[in-house]
Amino acid sequence: MSGLSDSPSIYGVKRPTLRRDASRNARRILDAGREALRENPHASAEDIAKAAGLGIATLYRRFPTRDDLVRGVIWDIFATDVAPALARAEGERDPRTGLRIAFQAVMRTSAHERIDFPVGMTLEIAQSFLGPTSRLIQRGQEQGLLRPDLDPEKDTLRLLLMLLSVLPTFSHQSGGWNRYLELVMEALTLTPMEPLPPAEPIIDPFKHA
Amino acid sequence: MSGLSDSPSIYGVKRPTLRRDASRNARRILDAGREALRENPHASAEDIAKAAGLGIATLYRRFPTRDDLVRGVIWDIFATDVAPALARAEGERDPRTGLRIAFQAVMRTSAHERIDFPVGMTLEIAQSFLGPTSRLIQRGQEQGLLRPDLDPEKDTLRLLLMLLSVLPTFSHQSGGWNRYLELVMEALTLTPMEPLPPAEPIIDPFKHA
Repeated sequence: MSGLSDSPSIYGVKRPTLRRDASRNARRILDAGREALRENPHASAEDIAKAAGLGIATLYRRFPTRDDLVRGVIWDIFATDVAPALARAEGERDPRTGLRIAFQAVMRTSAHERIDFPVGMTLEIAQSFLGPTSRLIQRGQEQGLLRPDLDPEKDTLRLLLMLLSVLPTFSHQSGGWNRYLELVMEALTLTPMEPLPPAEPIIDPFKHA
Repeated sequence: MSGLSDSPSIYGVKRPTLRRDASRNARRILDAGREALRENPHASAEDIAKAAGLGIATLYRRFPTRDDLVRGVIWDIFATDVAPALARAEGERDPRTGLRIAFQAVMRTSAHERIDFPVGMTLEIAQSFLGPTSRLIQRGQEQGLLRPDLDPEKDTLRLLLMLLSVLPTFSHQSGGWNRYLELVMEALTLTPMEPLPPAEPIIDPFKHA
């Protein structure tokens, strides 16, 4: 788990000034939060403090509100699970393959961890994804593989939002969302049309637990 | 305003049994709710009752919770603003034009009315949109204009979710979302690639008022 050193700013204080137990507590809260929110997106800060074996006061010292906690967990998930895939994506020779790897990583992680985007996402967290993805789109355009009228900066976030929006229609073990990633890839690329993966049944995305 | 006769089930009682003043009150609540929620998506049931010139007890008799009220307003918006466009869309000779009209209607209305989808949308409301749109996709496939591996039933809702997901990145007067509608249309159609409308600047979609 390299999340701690990759993302110091979520702890509210600069990493070098953290005492060792404070840093250990943050790690315990984030791990417990990740598991609790995966099981139940409505898990309370109290539940998470208990699961981490810490008092609620300790948790609130680190994350003043539940929203801060959710954002901290998502930041940590991005740093530990998505960032390595983005590095791999940028290393791909074919920028289309890289783009697919980048989008797949954020979709797979979001589906698996059942991330509550309306609450937990921030532009700052999204930025860590948008930089590498924008660069891949730009490279694809330079090589004549992606449509030249894409805006690498402004389109990337909107493409991400579009892809994430289908996730609530799938069970969180399903990979059926790949179909919609391929549909978007078709819209971006200049290559001949490929058949789509199958369309899985729909889970009601408007049902609130 | 034909919303009342088009959508009796939101009033909780069958229309023929509604007394005249009950039906008039429902209309006043829906009109006030629509305006209040457009101004402020967090408007309370109390605010809306006051704007309608009715007591909160009258409002709660009709809409037992705030979520019921929001859903009632969205249902009414669909019945009065989106349904006529869907009828026009189905009448188009070219199903691609019809599909564009249908998606545009729901995007334009959602942007303008600032509909809070996570709270207010239900599969039942979406259904009124999905039927006509599915039939347009089917017709487009039969005529060899849309890709044959689309699933008219399962893809339609997911396409709708994808399109709606970009709206929070635009101011609610903007039509910049048309770019993403065209991008999706490109992915669906078998016709040669057309240039996209311009990419407008991004408004932070994760900022919570």
